[in-house]
Amino acid sequence: MTQAILEDARRRVDDALDRLLPSESTSCARLHEAMRYSALSPGKRLRPALALAACRAFGGDEAACLEPAAALEMVHAYSLIHDDLPAMDDDDLRRGRPTSHVVYGEAVAILAGDALHTLACEVLATWPRGDAHLAARACVQRHVLEAIGWRGMVGGQALDMELTGKGGAASEEEVRGIHLRKTGALIRAALLLGSEIAGAKADQVEAMGRFGDVVGLAFQVVDDVLDVTADAATLGKSQGKDAKVAKVTYPAVLGLDGARTRARELTDAALRALDALPLPENGDPSQLESLTRFILERKS
Amino acid sequence: MTQAILEDARRRVDDALDRLLPSESTSCARLHEAMRYSALSPGKRLRPALALAACRAFGGDEAACLEPAAALEMVHAYSLIHDDLPAMDDDDLRRGRPTSHVVYGEAVAILAGDALHTLACEVLATWPRGDAHLAARACVQRHVLEAIGWRGMVGGQALDMELTGKGGAASEEEVRGIHLRKTGALIRAALLLGSEIAGAKADQVEAMGRFGDVVGLAFQVVDDVLDVTADAATLGKSQGKDAKVAKVTYPAVLGLDGARTRARELTDAALRALDALPLPENGDPSQLESLTRFILERKS
Repeated sequence: MTQAILEDARRRVDDALDRLLPSESTSCARLHEAMRYSALSPGKRLRPALALAACRAFGGDEAACLEPAAALEMVHAYSLIHDDLPAMDDDDLRRGRPTSHVVYGEAVAILAGDALHTLACEVLATWPRGDAHLAARACVQRHVLEAIGWRGMVGGQALDMELTGKGGAASEEEVRGIHLRKTGALIRAALLLGSEIAGAKADQVEAMGRFGDVVGLAFQVVDDVLDVTADAATLGKSQGKDAKVAKVTYPAVLGLDGARTRARELTDAALRALDALPLPENGDPSQLESLTRFILERKS
Repeated sequence: MTQAILEDARRRVDDALDRLLPSESTSCARLHEAMRYSALSPGKRLRPALALAACRAFGGDEAACLEPAAALEMVHAYSLIHDDLPAMDDDDLRRGRPTSHVVYGEAVAILAGDALHTLACEVLATWPRGDAHLAARACVQRHVLEAIGWRGMVGGQALDMELTGKGGAASEEEVRGIHLRKTGALIRAALLLGSEIAGAKADQVEAMGRFGDVVGLAFQVVDDVLDVTADAATLGKSQGKDAKVAKVTYPAVLGLDGARTRARELTDAALRALDALPLPENGDPSQLESLTRFILERKS
């Protein structure tokens, strides 16, 4: 069932991405090609799927979410391009394909990331065309922009880079701080985005935020564990890299078993937070529950 | 007089930047320091000054422009950080100081650029706090975001990189296309931003856009000429670089005298476009005129 949810979200979000991204046939073809290469690469589209599922949980119109959800995927793609650069994590493989700078060179890769970043902000600022959801626009922009800048994603990546090499000498508090910002913040913003577009009330948005904190952290703990236990072909990205460069991760700080225990605890906490969501009559949290289980039980 | 206008704008915009940028005392101190190093570096603050002057030309409240104008400077700073990277123009000197990646390393420089980019979008999305100017917000966001993404600034930088090496073999149409996007678009957006905040009508905004196209292009032609004729100490950045790497510039395509002639023609066209602005009774275009003359007669 979860595969069907993800597949459906992927198809609809990729349609929106295809419409929103510049075509390859105009001038600057290489820049546009690089933007499309990363944004439409064979990923899970988990953040858009979470946004759509959160919207459905509060009885909202998922179709209204598609463009903002596509913007989340653009942000995710931009962050992966920049994180993979030689000066950052220096990764050659992502989603089973060569990374952007390997294919297009560093200059085009940096610019493709920048252009996806701006385009995401533009989509969030100009959606919706009509008057419906106009009140949601300001909230959605605030949630996403707060999540991806110095307080959130970029700050988390900077901390991650700063502490790389420290490995197991870091505290759990430090790795938690990195993960909540680097990965958790955008996942949380995806859930808030769907909730706001569904017209959720303040207490509902707040409860979704608590769920988002837990599930976002859980996602990255599982990612840390998979970097130790999975193989590169399954992951679609380099494997074992974290330990090699002594990244600050849960397995480094707590050991592999400790990290697995923490992942299970966070799973339970996430499902409890999901149960505690104050849902309206027409709300349907089943997809959100499926995706939560998938995040925690996935193999790649 | 022009120095006084620029100095006044600089002081007020830097106050706003200082408030909006993250402090250096929290965690991620190096990221925050790098953001402040570039955004508050000793530049001219020309884009914010143009926004304030455009607002005054249409009789608007300049104080309301300060935060959006500061966002323009953040965008400009982000673009300079990324353009100066080794994989791009590989410059060591900017505004008389070492470039960001020389001081902070490439990883922090890339992230500082990204964080300034997001913060600029956040300021434009959350300004103003109250209800005044709410209608202007959507227009301002659209103008700026269209100007800085793949259609504008980033697309222009990609074209510039793509054609570097071609030098004088390029056509004037090619160099014009690069300059309008790479530099002209953000200058034009600064002028539109000030106009919208002043409550300018559609025909006034359109006329300002025509002025912006000319003055933005003129700015970059003068920049090209100064790269040939000025010295690095005056410029505060490396000099003679364009010819060394055979950049597509006006002097490369038209020769130095041809480029100077084109700069004079564009000056005249800019002043005519300024004269043609349909101003309200309380409008005051004197600062805009001073800044236009400065752009075209400056020595650095």
